[in-house]
Amino acid sequence: MSDVKVPLDVPEGMRDVYLANYNLITQGSGRLMLFAGDQKMEHLNDDFYGEGIPADDGDPEHLFRIASEGKIGVFAAQLGLIARYAMDYPEVPYLVKMNSKTHLVGVSQKDPVSRQLWSVGQLVDICAEKNVKIAGIGYTIYLGSENEAEMLAEAAALINDAHFHGLVTVLWIYPRGKAVKDEKDPHLIAGAAGVAACLGSDFVKVNAPKKDGKSGAELLQEAVQAAGRTKVVCAGGSSTSEEKFLAELYDQIHVGGAAGNATGRNIHQKSLAEAVKFCNAIYAITVENKSVEEALAILKA
Amino acid sequence: MSDVKVPLDVPEGMRDVYLANYNLITQGSGRLMLFAGDQKMEHLNDDFYGEGIPADDGDPEHLFRIASEGKIGVFAAQLGLIARYAMDYPEVPYLVKMNSKTHLVGVSQKDPVSRQLWSVGQLVDICAEKNVKIAGIGYTIYLGSENEAEMLAEAAALINDAHFHGLVTVLWIYPRGKAVKDEKDPHLIAGAAGVAACLGSDFVKVNAPKKDGKSGAELLQEAVQAAGRTKVVCAGGSSTSEEKFLAELYDQIHVGGAAGNATGRNIHQKSLAEAVKFCNAIYAITVENKSVEEALAILKA
Amino acid sequence: MSDVKVPLDVPEGMRDVYLANYNLITQGSGRLMLFAGDQKMEHLNDDFYGEGIPADDGDPEHLFRIASEGKIGVFAAQLGLIARYAMDYPEVPYLVKMNSKTHLVGVSQKDPVSRQLWSVGQLVDICAEKNVKIAGIGYTIYLGSENEAEMLAEAAALINDAHFHGLVTVLWIYPRGKAVKDEKDPHLIAGAAGVAACLGSDFVKVNAPKKDGKSGAELLQEAVQAAGRTKVVCAGGSSTSEEKFLAELYDQIHVGGAAGNATGRNIHQKSLAEAVKFCNAIYAITVENKSVEEALAILKA
Amino acid sequence: MSDVKVPLDVPEGMRDVYLANYNLITQGSGRLMLFAGDQKMEHLNDDFYGEGIPADDGDPEHLFRIASEGKIGVFAAQLGLIARYAMDYPEVPYLVKMNSKTHLVGVSQKDPVSRQLWSVGQLVDICAEKNVKIAGIGYTIYLGSENEAEMLAEAAALINDAHFHGLVTVLWIYPRGKAVKDEKDPHLIAGAAGVAACLGSDFVKVNAPKKDGKSGAELLQEAVQAAGRTKVVCAGGSSTSEEKFLAELYDQIHVGGAAGNATGRNIHQKSLAEAVKFCNAIYAITVENKSVEEALAILKA
Amino acid sequence: MSDVKVPLDVPEGMRDVYLANYNLITQGSGRLMLFAGDQKMEHLNDDFYGEGIPADDGDPEHLFRIASEGKIGVFAAQLGLIARYAMDYPEVPYLVKMNSKTHLVGVSQKDPVSRQLWSVGQLVDICAEKNVKIAGIGYTIYLGSENEAEMLAEAAALINDAHFHGLVTVLWIYPRGKAVKDEKDPHLIAGAAGVAACLGSDFVKVNAPKKDGKSGAELLQEAVQAAGRTKVVCAGGSSTSEEKFLAELYDQIHVGGAAGNATGRNIHQKSLAEAVKFCNAIYAITVENKSVEEALAILKA
Repeated sequence: MSDVKVPLDVPEGMRDVYLANYNLITQGSGRLMLFAGDQKMEHLNDDFYGEGIPADDGDPEHLFRIASEGKIGVFAAQLGLIARYAMDYPEVPYLVKMNSKTHLVGVSQKDPVSRQLWSVGQLVDICAEKNVKIAGIGYTIYLGSENEAEMLAEAAALINDAHFHGLVTVLWIYPRGKAVKDEKDPHLIAGAAGVAACLGSDFVKVNAPKKDGKSGAELLQEAVQAAGRTKVVCAGGSSTSEEKFLAELYDQIHVGGAAGNATGRNIHQKSLAEAVKFCNAIYAITVENKSVEEALAILKA
Repeated sequence: MSDVKVPLDVPEGMRDVYLANYNLITQGSGRLMLFAGDQKMEHLNDDFYGEGIPADDGDPEHLFRIASEGKIGVFAAQLGLIARYAMDYPEVPYLVKMNSKTHLVGVSQKDPVSRQLWSVGQLVDICAEKNVKIAGIGYTIYLGSENEAEMLAEAAALINDAHFHGLVTVLWIYPRGKAVKDEKDPHLIAGAAGVAACLGSDFVKVNAPKKDGKSGAELLQEAVQAAGRTKVVCAGGSSTSEEKFLAELYDQIHVGGAAGNATGRNIHQKSLAEAVKFCNAIYAITVENKSVEEALAILKA
Repeated sequence: MSDVKVPLDVPEGMRDVYLANYNLITQGSGRLMLFAGDQKMEHLNDDFYGEGIPADDGDPEHLFRIASEGKIGVFAAQLGLIARYAMDYPEVPYLVKMNSKTHLVGVSQKDPVSRQLWSVGQLVDICAEKNVKIAGIGYTIYLGSENEAEMLAEAAALINDAHFHGLVTVLWIYPRGKAVKDEKDPHLIAGAAGVAACLGSDFVKVNAPKKDGKSGAELLQEAVQAAGRTKVVCAGGSSTSEEKFLAELYDQIHVGGAAGNATGRNIHQKSLAEAVKFCNAIYAITVENKSVEEALAILKA
Repeated sequence: MSDVKVPLDVPEGMRDVYLANYNLITQGSGRLMLFAGDQKMEHLNDDFYGEGIPADDGDPEHLFRIASEGKIGVFAAQLGLIARYAMDYPEVPYLVKMNSKTHLVGVSQKDPVSRQLWSVGQLVDICAEKNVKIAGIGYTIYLGSENEAEMLAEAAALINDAHFHGLVTVLWIYPRGKAVKDEKDPHLIAGAAGVAACLGSDFVKVNAPKKDGKSGAELLQEAVQAAGRTKVVCAGGSSTSEEKFLAELYDQIHVGGAAGNATGRNIHQKSLAEAVKFCNAIYAITVENKSVEEALAILKA
Repeated sequence: MSDVKVPLDVPEGMRDVYLANYNLITQGSGRLMLFAGDQKMEHLNDDFYGEGIPADDGDPEHLFRIASEGKIGVFAAQLGLIARYAMDYPEVPYLVKMNSKTHLVGVSQKDPVSRQLWSVGQLVDICAEKNVKIAGIGYTIYLGSENEAEMLAEAAALINDAHFHGLVTVLWIYPRGKAVKDEKDPHLIAGAAGVAACLGSDFVKVNAPKKDGKSGAELLQEAVQAAGRTKVVCAGGSSTSEEKFLAELYDQIHVGGAAGNATGRNIHQKSLAEAVKFCNAIYAITVENKSVEEALAILKA
C-alpha cells in the first residue's frame, strides 16, 4: 500500500474510504494506470470508427470489455455510459469524467469551455446503492481559454466535494485558447501542473511536453517538480509503435518522474485480445514497476 | 415485455416504475413509436397551417385526437399543452419535451440554444395527483453550437433526475451551428448518438443520415453501434409518399438497426382519419414487427 | 360562470381558487377585459404626459381611479405600484405584470430582453395577509429575440408556479428582434399564440395582425385556432376614434374569435369621467356581449 | 409624525418598524435629507482629494463626523464602511448603499452595470445584534443601459425584501448608456421616477432636470407627478455657491414638489465645522420647513 | 496586542476568534507581514523556475519550508496547496487566497476576471476538524475591468462571510483593464484603497504607486488616508537589492503609513537559508519595529 498523504479536505471519517479508493486505482503502487474512455464526447466517433480502427471499437461496450479483462488502475468515462454498463462489469474501478464537450467548435471560432455535467452527490448516491466501484472523478480545464475562470471554479469546488466524500481526483489540464501559442511548451505544462497543485487535485493529466518540436521524458521534470505532492500522469501521445510507446512510458516514469499514464485510443483502437495485452504491458511498467523488456514480453505473449 | 437493462441511476425503489414506463411507451417491444407534437414552438405555425395542410391541423387538439385514436408508443409535447388537454385524453402515454425554442433566429445570426422550461419534479407532482400518464421526458441538444455546453449540462442533469423518478428519456441531438458544415453526415450523426450514450439517455433521436446527397438505411449503422445500449430513433424525413416513408422506416429498423421512429408532420398534416391510419401503419412496422406490405394494407384499409 | 377547463398544473386543492380567480377577471363570461397599466416602465412617461394627454394621466393614481370606477375585468400593473395604492382600491381585481423593461435600448442596438422582477410566492404572501385581490400574473416574451430562451424559461416556470397557487396567467407575446421582419404578420402572430399554448398560459395577448398593410378581424382567426384552449386577447391598436375602436373590438371577438381585449392608453389618456365611460363601453362588448350600438350608447351617455 | 401609507409588501408585524424607520430618516417631516457618502466607490478618490478639497475629506471618518455632528435625515454609505465606523457613531441613522461600481469603464466602452453587494438579511442580522441604526437601503439603476434588466431585477427583489424587514428604500435612477442621448431631459427623468414607482420604492433620487441647457425647479414637476406616492429626492448638482444651492433646494421642494434632497460632495468637501453648518442649513429647509433666509442665517452663524 | 476595532459584521460570539486571528497574523503589532505564495496560479511557473531562480523554488514545498522556518505574519496560498502540505507545517498561520486566474489571456484580448474558487464554509470546516491555522482569506479585484462588477460582488460577500466566521480579510486590488491607463497612479491607487474600505476589508494590498515614473513612500499617503480603518499593505516591487528593498519597506511604513507588506518572489526566489533570513529582516522592520540597520544585521548574520 502506497504511503499517501491524505489531503486536509478529506474529513477524518472519510480517510479510510479515500485511502481505499486511492489504493484501489493505484493498486497500492502510488502509480496510476488510467484507461481513458471519455473521448466519445470530445472526439465524437472519430476515435472509434474509420480506417485502421477495428470494427469492435465502434461499440462502447468494447471499452468495458477491455477494462474488465485487461489490467488497469481505473477506467474513466462519463456517468451516462457507466450507468448503463457497470451492472455487467462490477469489478472495474471507475472514475467519472465530470465535464466534456465536443471538438466541433474550434479555438479560432471560440475559446473552449467544458462544463460540469453531474454532481459528486449523484455519484455517491449511486455508489451507495448499487454494486459499482466509483473511486474518483475527473475534470478538464482549458487553461488560457477566455472561459478559464468558469472551469477553475468548477474544478476547485468539485475537488473539494470529491475529497469530502472520499473520492480521488484527476484534473486533465490542457493550455488551449487564442492566447496559447504552444500547447506543448514544457514550461507552460509545468505551470498547468502547478495549477493542479493549487487546486488540490490528487493527480493531474498533462500532455507530453515538446520543445523545438522534440519530445523527451526529461522535459517532464519541471512539471513533476511544480506539481509537488500532486502526481503527474502523462498521455503517451500518438506513438508510432507499441514498443516506442512502452519505452517512452518507462522514461516518463523513471526519467521524467511521472506517476503513471492516461491512455485511450492507443488501447481501444485494437481488437479486444490485443487491447488487453497492451493494457497488461502498460500496467506492468506503471504499476508493477517492470522493465520495458518485461512489458514487451507480456505484449508478445 | 422487452428485456431492458435498467440504468444504474434508477434507484432500486423506482425500478418497477421505470420498467412500466419503458414498456408502456415501447408496448413491450423494445421499439419506440414516438408521435412528435412539439413543433408548435420550434416551427411556430408553419407545420400546422398553410397550403396543403388540412384545416384541422391548425387546432392543437388535432394532435391529441390522433394520439388518442391512433396506435402510438408515446406522444411528445410541451408540458403546457399536455396540462390543458390531457384531462380529456387520459389514455395517451405522454413524453414531456423539456426545452424548445423558435426557428426565428437563424444560425447565421446566432448559434442555437434551447433551454430547459420545466423541472422533472413538476412533472412528477402532476402525475402523482392527476390521472395522466407522463412516462418520459425529451430534450434537444444542438451539438456543435457555441452554446453546446449549456445544453449538455442541462441534458445530463435532466436525464439523471428523470431516471431518479423512473421516467424514460429521449434526447433529440442535432449537430447545428456555424461550426457544423454537414448536419446529415453519417459519421457526425454517429458522434451525436455516442454523446447520447455518454449522457445516459435511453433513446436518442437523430436525423436520417445522408452521404453525398444520398440517404440509405445502412448509413445509420454507425450511429446505432456508437450508441450502444442507448437506442436510436430516426426521423423519417420529408418523404414523397407514404409508401416510401414506410419502406424507409422498415429499412431503418431492419437494415439500419434503429429502435423506432419519431414522426411529426408526416402524421399530423393529415385529416384525423388519415392520420390515424398512418399512425397504425407506422406502429405496425415499429412495434408489431410487421412487413411493409402489411403496413400498407392497414393504410389502405 | 364560464365553463373553463382547469389546467392539470393547478393542484386539486387550488381548483376553487383558480376558478374563482378566473371567473373574477372574466366576470363569469369567459372573456377578459384587461385594463393595462403596465406601460409606465415600458414606455416611461411617453404615454402619460405630453400633448393631447390630459394632465390627470401623469399621476399613477389616475389608473387606479379608472380601475375602481370603471367596469373592467382586471387591472394589470407592476407589483410596486399595486403595493402602494391597492389599500385604497381593494375592490379592484389585479394582475401583476411580472417583467418589464424600458424602450430606451432599441432593437437595432440590442435584441430585447425583459426579466422577471418578482416571484409568485411574493404575491401570494401579500394576498394572504392583505385585503388585495391579486388574481393573476402577466409576463412578456419577445419571440425571435436573441434572448428569447431566457424569457421562454422564465415564462414557463412562472405559469407553472402561478397555476400551483391558483392564479390565472396572461402572456404578452410580441415577435421582436433583428430576426423579425414583420411583427404584425398574421402567420407569425399565430405562431406566437401557439407558443403560449405550449407554455400552458390561460390567455395570450397579441398585437392585432396586419397583412399587406391592412388589418382586419379575420386575420386573427389563424392565431385563435393555433392557441387552442389558450384564449387570445387582442390589443386595439391606435384607433382613430372610439367608434372605430369599439367596432374593431366587436369584430375581433365575433369575427376573429378573440376572447377579449387588453387596452391601455386608449383608456387612460382620457379624463377620469371619459375613461370610465370608455371602460364601460369596452366591457359591454367584451363581457356583457353587447352590440357596438349598445356600447356607443353607454359611451355617449 | 408624517402621514405615510405603508406599502402592502410590509408585513403587518413589521408596520411599526417600517414607520419608525421612515419617521427616523424623515424626522417625522415626510421629507428626506440624505447625506450621500457612497461616492468613494463610484468616483474613487476624485471627490475626496485634490485641489480645492480640504485635507480632512481624504479620511472616510470625516463623513461619519459630519453625519454625527450635523443635522441630517440619514447617512448613505456602503456596508463595509458602516461596519467599521458605526460603533463609534451609533446615533447616526444609516442607509446602506447596496450596489456600486467605479467610473473607470466609460459608457463609450461598455454600458454601465452595478451589482448588488450585500443582502438585506445581512443588514438585518447586524442591526439585530449591534447598536446600529440601519433604517434603509439604496440601489442604483442605470436606465437605458444594455444591462438594465439585471439592475431592474435586483432592485425589485431588494425593495420587496427591504420592506419585508421594515426597511425604507431609496432608488438612485440615472438614465445612462449608449442609447441615452440626454441624461437630464425632464421627460426622461420623469420616466425614471415612474419606474421607481412601478418598482415600489419609497424614495427615488434623480438628477436635477435640464432643458435646452437650462435648469429650473418647475422642470421637476413632471417627475414628481409621475412618481405618485413614491417621493422624489433631488441632487443639488454642482452649484456655484451655498446661497444658490439653498435657493435651488428651496425651489425644488416648494416649486418642483421634491420631498427632499441627497447631497454628497457639496457637504463633505468642506472642513468639519463648515460641513456641519451646511448640513444644518439644508436640514432647516428640507426637514424644518424653513425659508432660505433662515437657512442662510444658520449657515452664517 | 494591537488595539483593533472589531468590525460590526463580526458577531459577538466570534469577537474573540477574530481578535485571535488578527493578532496571530499581525503578532499583536497591528502590522502585517504577508508571505505571498499564491503566484503559482497567476504567474504559472514563471516565478518558480528559470534563470536566476534556485532549483529549490520549483517545488511548492519550498514555500512551506520558508513559512515554517522564517518569521512571518501569515502565509497566503490557494486552499488546494494548503490542504496538501499543512499537516506537516501546522505551526504556520495561513490565509487562503480565494480566487486566482492565470496570466495567459492579456488585457488587450479580454479584460481580466478572477472568480471565487472556494467558500468560507469549506475553510471553516477544515479548521474545525484539522490542526491547521487558517486565520484569514484573500481575494483579488481588478478594478476598472469590464468584469469588475462580478469581482466586487464576490468580494463583498466573502468579506462579510469571513467576518461572520471570525476570519481576517485581505483584498488585493489592482486597477487593470482596457480603461486603465496608469495602474500605478497614486490617486488611482488611493481610490482602490477607498474601495477596500467601502467593502469592509481589514487589509488591502496595493501596488507601490509611481508618479511620472518615480516611486516614493510619500506617494502612498493618499491611499493610506483614503483607506481609513482598513489597513494598507504594500508590495515591495522589483527592487534591485535587499538593502534597497528593506529601506523602501521602512519608508512605506514610516513615511507612507503602510501597515505592513506582502512579499512573494523577493522571498521565495532564494535558497531556503537566504529566504529565511530575508523573511526575518522584513519581519524585523514590519512587526518588530526595527530600523533598516537592525534588519540588515539580521540579513547579514
